[in-house]
Amino acid sequence: MKAVGLVVEYNPFHNGHLYHLQKAKEVTGADVVVAVMSGNFTQRGEPTILDKWQRARAALNNGVDLVIELPLVSAVEPADRFAAGALQLLADMQVESVVFGAEHPHWDFHHMVDLEKSFQADQFKQFDQTYATQFNQQLKERIGVSLIDPNDILAFSYYKANINSRFGLRLVPIQRTGSQYHDQQIRGKVASASAIRNSVTNKQQELIQEAVPEDTFEELVHLKMIPSWDQLYPLLRNQLIQAPQSLLAQTYQMSEGLENRLKRIAEQELTFDGFIKRVKTKRYTYAHLTRLFLYTVLQASETEVHNAIYHPYHHLLGFTEMGQEYLHHVKKQLQYPLITKVDQTLHHGDFTLDYRAGKLYQMFTPDEQDIKRSPIRVTVK
Amino acid sequence: MKAVGLVVEYNPFHNGHLYHLQKAKEVTGADVVVAVMSGNFTQRGEPTILDKWQRARAALNNGVDLVIELPLVSAVEPADRFAAGALQLLADMQVESVVFGAEHPHWDFHHMVDLEKSFQADQFKQFDQTYATQFNQQLKERIGVSLIDPNDILAFSYYKANINSRFGLRLVPIQRTGSQYHDQQIRGKVASASAIRNSVTNKQQELIQEAVPEDTFEELVHLKMIPSWDQLYPLLRNQLIQAPQSLLAQTYQMSEGLENRLKRIAEQELTFDGFIKRVKTKRYTYAHLTRLFLYTVLQASETEVHNAIYHPYHHLLGFTEMGQEYLHHVKKQLQYPLITKVDQTLHHGDFTLDYRAGKLYQMFTPDEQDIKRSPIRVTVK
Repeated sequence: MKAVGLVVEYNPFHNGHLYHLQKAKEVTGADVVVAVMSGNFTQRGEPTILDKWQRARAALNNGVDLVIELPLVSAVEPADRFAAGALQLLADMQVESVVFGAEHPHWDFHHMVDLEKSFQADQFKQFDQTYATQFNQQLKERIGVSLIDPNDILAFSYYKANINSRFGLRLVPIQRTGSQYHDQQIRGKVASASAIRNSVTNKQQELIQEAVPEDTFEELVHLKMIPSWDQLYPLLRNQLIQAPQSLLAQTYQMSEGLENRLKRIAEQELTFDGFIKRVKTKRYTYAHLTRLFLYTVLQASETEVHNAIYHPYHHLLGFTEMGQEYLHHVKKQLQYPLITKVDQTLHHGDFTLDYRAGKLYQMFTPDEQDIKRSPIRVTVK
Repeated sequence: MKAVGLVVEYNPFHNGHLYHLQKAKEVTGADVVVAVMSGNFTQRGEPTILDKWQRARAALNNGVDLVIELPLVSAVEPADRFAAGALQLLADMQVESVVFGAEHPHWDFHHMVDLEKSFQADQFKQFDQTYATQFNQQLKERIGVSLIDPNDILAFSYYKANINSRFGLRLVPIQRTGSQYHDQQIRGKVASASAIRNSVTNKQQELIQEAVPEDTFEELVHLKMIPSWDQLYPLLRNQLIQAPQSLLAQTYQMSEGLENRLKRIAEQELTFDGFIKRVKTKRYTYAHLTRLFLYTVLQASETEVHNAIYHPYHHLLGFTEMGQEYLHHVKKQLQYPLITKVDQTLHHGDFTLDYRAGKLYQMFTPDEQDIKRSPIRVTVK
């Protein structure tokens, strides 16, 4: 059995994702689709619009055969860590290839990785510009392109991880179609996830129905509240105000002294909007900050996150019959533990951060996210 | 100038309080009424229905001349600590007498304090019953009464504090009138504070108007939300889930091992109702637990609370002209600092717990509770 791997957020699952996974099977000739999917928080540290089980079910109903949860410590990270964590699991799952969309799939990403190595060795000397800016200047000079679009950056990160960690995966970038990532409006059958989320906010049911499969549509129209940092802010604010600075300083990714600034602004700002506007500077991107906020609310220390990074696992969210068969084949060769049900031992052990993120996500849903939840089984009609 | 001291919560200020303070002046012949009032949290660790400034203003408009905030570490404590903290400030404020309501004002509370001393020396030996139960058995045998009613218990605590700390205050218990503390319905002009809070919940405007002065009524009808632990629970739940057990164990009043039980139940319960029902046992009263929850949400450690207890201060919330004149007279003899405006130095210093409690109270009001707020000045017509 030949498997193709996908790295996904499905926030929410939509027609563009459907197209992408069909294309992935087509170009690789795979029998099985294995998706490594972010849990209840996105790469930007935002709560997902539907929970991981709802999103896994939609994926399984629409062509994915096996859904594995990407642990938080990889899922909520910049592109390089995100890509490395996801490919690590896919490689362990023995997939033959990984297919992903890119704005410029024809670019020679492998060559770019080599260029970066020589750049790192020789050129990274100007401390008044960010690393990304300097590397892009190099790319521009040497091969006339720039890594700016988000999926190109991810594609580059997949190549880099695959080469550096010798995963031996065949990487297959394909053209992204339809709306761009940043398009905020649904236009027709293929729309961006963020355009769909906007339509949910604006209750544009007909537009949504056009852009997502039936099951995602059903979940979205029954949504009582759109998860966002607006609702999580009281937790963040209280943590920033009540925790001693020495404790906040230990938070994963808390740069030196930033905790004092966050504390001071939290004391003054009652809404997330007001808070983020004052916190954001050139130095810290929005995504960097929201990731940091999530780690702050989870009270995740540097030590704790590093421990989690060194102990990866496959948390199985669901499978089709085909997926189950595939799992049966590869199970014995897995290097990392396969978690099919989270029990009391696990949730205070290596799984703790994902478990605690699930508890946090219960701000948006009464559904328990981990304990005693069995993988979803979907029978393909 | 002769001053009488009151220890109050005014949650909210109502006609019974008005009657009590007039009576207090009458029986003592005082010119000035000094009230030591709890801040934004009651003795039971519950958020007050109106904030401390609103309650101070109502008090000043209705006969109180000087309102001092009782620091959280005294205000949110069992009767003995509450009474001792309040009398400490009133004694420092040079009041001549303290008047308080009791269910049995004619009892010889002084004698009871002596009895307790001999009881503690000789009799406290049965470890299968609580201290209170055994002491009450003693009282029953020796003088035929029991300390059961809440205001009798407080009265006893005032006597005990006054004797033990040699405050030299003249204590004047008076009869509580009208509705009992536990009466849940407004009946006429004098109702209990909890009956009034219930009527606010049930929007019984006419009943409320009957039972409170005009200004309290205005504040109550404009209330958007009734502060309660239902709204604070997400903060408590997240703290219990995310903080390591070792950190929770350091919380003030966290008995050994209780943090594990709280953590486990918080993980499972999504509402405060569900949580408290499972947490409550014979061993822990509701009030003990809600106080503990407040200290947990404030991340107040044993060390921090003890430091605060040893550094009392007078935080001035407001005064009338008479109150200002009185303050002018006693100012130079004050043993503890007089805070008229909270600034940046103070709010991270000795005042920090009250400051942080104010920030927490902003879950219920957009109004800043401390920084740059000047005492209220009321001109008596």
